[in-house]
Amino acid sequence: MSKYAIGIDFGTLSGRALLVDVKTGEELATYVLDYPHGVMDTELPCGKKLPQDWALQYPGDYLDVLSVTVPDVLAQSGVNPSDVIGVGIDFTACTILPTLADGTPLCFLEEYECEPHAYVKLWKHHAAQPHANKLNAIAEERGEKWLNNYGGKISSEWAIPKVWQLLDEAPEIYEKMDRFIEAADWVVWQLTGEETRNACCAGYKALWNKNTGFPSNEFFKALDPRLENVIDEKFGRDILPLGAKAGGITAKMAEITGLDEGTAVAVGVIDAHIFVPAVGISKEGEMLAIMGTSTCHMMMGTVEKQVQGICGVVADGIMPGLYGYEAGQGCVGDHFQWFIDNCLPKAYFSEAKEKGMNIHRLLRQKCESKRPGETGLVALDWWNGNRSVLADADLTGMLLGMTLQTKPEDIYRALIEATAYGTRMIIETFDDYGVPVESFYAAGGIAQKDPMMMQIYADVINMPIKLAGSEQGGALGSAIFGAFAAGSAAGGYDNIFEAAEVMGKVKDTVYIPDPENAEIYDKLYAEYKILHDYFGRGDNDVMKRLKAMKQQ
Amino acid sequence: MSKYAIGIDFGTLSGRALLVDVKTGEELATYVLDYPHGVMDTELPCGKKLPQDWALQYPGDYLDVLSVTVPDVLAQSGVNPSDVIGVGIDFTACTILPTLADGTPLCFLEEYECEPHAYVKLWKHHAAQPHANKLNAIAEERGEKWLNNYGGKISSEWAIPKVWQLLDEAPEIYEKMDRFIEAADWVVWQLTGEETRNACCAGYKALWNKNTGFPSNEFFKALDPRLENVIDEKFGRDILPLGAKAGGITAKMAEITGLDEGTAVAVGVIDAHIFVPAVGISKEGEMLAIMGTSTCHMMMGTVEKQVQGICGVVADGIMPGLYGYEAGQGCVGDHFQWFIDNCLPKAYFSEAKEKGMNIHRLLRQKCESKRPGETGLVALDWWNGNRSVLADADLTGMLLGMTLQTKPEDIYRALIEATAYGTRMIIETFDDYGVPVESFYAAGGIAQKDPMMMQIYADVINMPIKLAGSEQGGALGSAIFGAFAAGSAAGGYDNIFEAAEVMGKVKDTVYIPDPENAEIYDKLYAEYKILHDYFGRGDNDVMKRLKAMKQQ
Repeated sequence: MSKYAIGIDFGTLSGRALLVDVKTGEELATYVLDYPHGVMDTELPCGKKLPQDWALQYPGDYLDVLSVTVPDVLAQSGVNPSDVIGVGIDFTACTILPTLADGTPLCFLEEYECEPHAYVKLWKHHAAQPHANKLNAIAEERGEKWLNNYGGKISSEWAIPKVWQLLDEAPEIYEKMDRFIEAADWVVWQLTGEETRNACCAGYKALWNKNTGFPSNEFFKALDPRLENVIDEKFGRDILPLGAKAGGITAKMAEITGLDEGTAVAVGVIDAHIFVPAVGISKEGEMLAIMGTSTCHMMMGTVEKQVQGICGVVADGIMPGLYGYEAGQGCVGDHFQWFIDNCLPKAYFSEAKEKGMNIHRLLRQKCESKRPGETGLVALDWWNGNRSVLADADLTGMLLGMTLQTKPEDIYRALIEATAYGTRMIIETFDDYGVPVESFYAAGGIAQKDPMMMQIYADVINMPIKLAGSEQGGALGSAIFGAFAAGSAAGGYDNIFEAAEVMGKVKDTVYIPDPENAEIYDKLYAEYKILHDYFGRGDNDVMKRLKAMKQQ
Repeated sequence: MSKYAIGIDFGTLSGRALLVDVKTGEELATYVLDYPHGVMDTELPCGKKLPQDWALQYPGDYLDVLSVTVPDVLAQSGVNPSDVIGVGIDFTACTILPTLADGTPLCFLEEYECEPHAYVKLWKHHAAQPHANKLNAIAEERGEKWLNNYGGKISSEWAIPKVWQLLDEAPEIYEKMDRFIEAADWVVWQLTGEETRNACCAGYKALWNKNTGFPSNEFFKALDPRLENVIDEKFGRDILPLGAKAGGITAKMAEITGLDEGTAVAVGVIDAHIFVPAVGISKEGEMLAIMGTSTCHMMMGTVEKQVQGICGVVADGIMPGLYGYEAGQGCVGDHFQWFIDNCLPKAYFSEAKEKGMNIHRLLRQKCESKRPGETGLVALDWWNGNRSVLADADLTGMLLGMTLQTKPEDIYRALIEATAYGTRMIIETFDDYGVPVESFYAAGGIAQKDPMMMQIYADVINMPIKLAGSEQGGALGSAIFGAFAAGSAAGGYDNIFEAAEVMGKVKDTVYIPDPENAEIYDKLYAEYKILHDYFGRGDNDVMKRLKAMKQQ
């Protein structure tokens, strides 16, 4: 008798459910619901305008995802709800909201309908940058050791800058809220009636460490005396490892979703980290890159090292029992989109239209016949700062080697290569710090859609690249955690690595490095590295000086 | 009774005559004739295909200019030919042709109609690059002192590489030709019946020096034994200073042009250098930039210095009695055109169309409200190599400071600023080498049409910029030399500086540096300089290495 798990993947604009056979990994049904309120970055539903850099969501949309997509995949597949043994949730992070003690979002209260701080702050809410800057300065001044677990810098996207901004700008909301909770954990709370906090969000976004806990109350007091007890008052110190069972579906949620009451629900996971089991990674040294507008690199290790420029190292943060490492490149797909929006001449659009192909495909066609080095160009991929080895948001882009014969496709290819060099720099840094990268997987939109780029990456890093086998890697990873939370007694798994091996998948296509290309790219990468260090490590801080002049 | 002079300016695509009152500088009439054969860069009239990098002209077209434009300006103005006291000629250079001893171009002979080497090689004929490379290597190896008068490198556009290519590829033409002569001098020969050679072309394009003459026969022998006596056999050592009278109009030419027989004709001048008297420059230290697709800088000095990276220093080469210095930037208008052709998105063309403005104007509109430093960008203007201080064709462009918010107009402005920094670098190098630049004039298309760019230049170099007052600066300069060749007895001038002061003109508009902008540009220029030296003087030869890889 087959058993099934459902993974629910909450993205930036929509939520998706996926129903999976736990013994074969077969994906039986999937359904996506766009969030009715989408991303609110200009105004609230009441019409109140939002300042620049804000990005909010409405938590009722997440409940809609549960009540629409789960019944739909049950109906589509014809699976008996009693054969669904577990549910897993993954979510963008840090996407976080203030609630009452019973989990009611403050924005559900009529009095706060028009209060921006009562809503969910989406991961890409960037208005807490001043708070992040102050936090970084204070942490550095105090010599806070945990800072090195995050490559020396905390992002404005994370939980503490966000709660601090809330306190500063809306102290009455801060007073009123009983909990400040990741949406991943909030959805689990809604499903199970139990408030839990997962190690992935807590570790990567809220400065929690398995061995040392959260930063000290003295540190929070140094930020603002009112924050001294923020962890105990608004968060919570009880952090569950990934794969743990948060609880069972409540009677009310059983009614809404069509699942059986008591069905196991795993603790939440960040939507990037969840890809690791989805490609079947079950041990250390296997790096996964999720390549989209930006790229997120995930890897597991058996030791905790403070690798330069990583976004975080978190025990149990990707899979239980191993240290999870995260690194990132701030500008990958965004880079190419910027180029297409700002630099691509009219004639190329006309040509694409004539040939009935999209513009990315046309550019690819013009690029792919070129051999490495043929463009004569090299770029530094820092259009959005450097979020990896150098961890420096004030760095900017550079392009070098142009002549009057340089064509747009040459620049496009140089930008692609630059992001590949950036990935190699991350890999080499992990190697240098004693966390060797032994194999490489890719997931995300670019990995699925751009064979040329993937071949360039394989040639540049000189490693084969395996591709995620599922189009819904996030939801598949969540289903794997659902099957693990259910346990073998219910027909699932007691070992998450076994679950990942069985249910996770890669494609048959593997991008194999071309030895000749790899040799040329070694030389080009050497040039990139010289420029990387010259502009990035203080030899010539021209980028920072120009940025300062720009902001004057 | 008013007296007049006619200047005839031979450009790349057309020839123009201008009739000027010698005592007021008033321009009475002008007429342009496009060359019927234009530039032949793909095939000869007989259908014979030309290899890449060739650019030829047909000398009959120059005679058409004489027979059409001169009668036309006489007719338009109603001036009595006997009141026209002098004629001056300026020409693109090195634009050079093989002739018989009587001046007949070899391509006029039926047997050579289909022989490319029998035609005029236009200045931008670049097929002699291999010969230029060999010449430079041999000259350097031999420690030829004159090499430093040309910034250490000879261009493939100049006379010796061109004659050497002819010898190599068409020895029978080399054998047949009695003279190899600049088109400027050939037209004067046609008008006067006298073969003359002018100091400007000889000095800037054929390695002649007033004190030391041409390079030694040993040098030419080292290039190729057959070239040992090339100067005596094909050129000539009798070089006339600028302003000298070459002779009088012949009877035959009087008939063709409508001018009186015997009317004074000045020796030829290069079409760039002729601008100097046309803006009224009459002393040392006044730099003139002729700004078009590339920029040519001219200045006079009382001493001969070997300034780094100049194109040449020639005694009597701009005005008699002073040393003429020439420097250049290889990529100015070409730079902006490259940007517009290759980097400007569709939306900008649509917007320009909607607003009914040309695309340069739209970009200008978007740029000009920005303050210096606001783009956050800095570029190195080496898309066409560096033809000035560094004299290195293997350098390439660089752009730095891009973010995802960078707009096309930011890049456009950065490219403009980069060319202005390049100009400042030339000025400072002249200063450093003891030839101080005390004031600055601009002529050419960009100077006339782009007030934003001119203001940026004024702010960057922190000097007022005066503009050429005539739209036909070349022809006006030639008319000034015509009036000088005629002499005061005929109603002209015995002093060329006096002629330039009276007949030359600048506009009332002067671009005055804004002190605040100049201060910011001091800082930005300092950044440019660091990058200029880092990439240009050997600290990081990445541009050369990339170029070598590209060519592999």
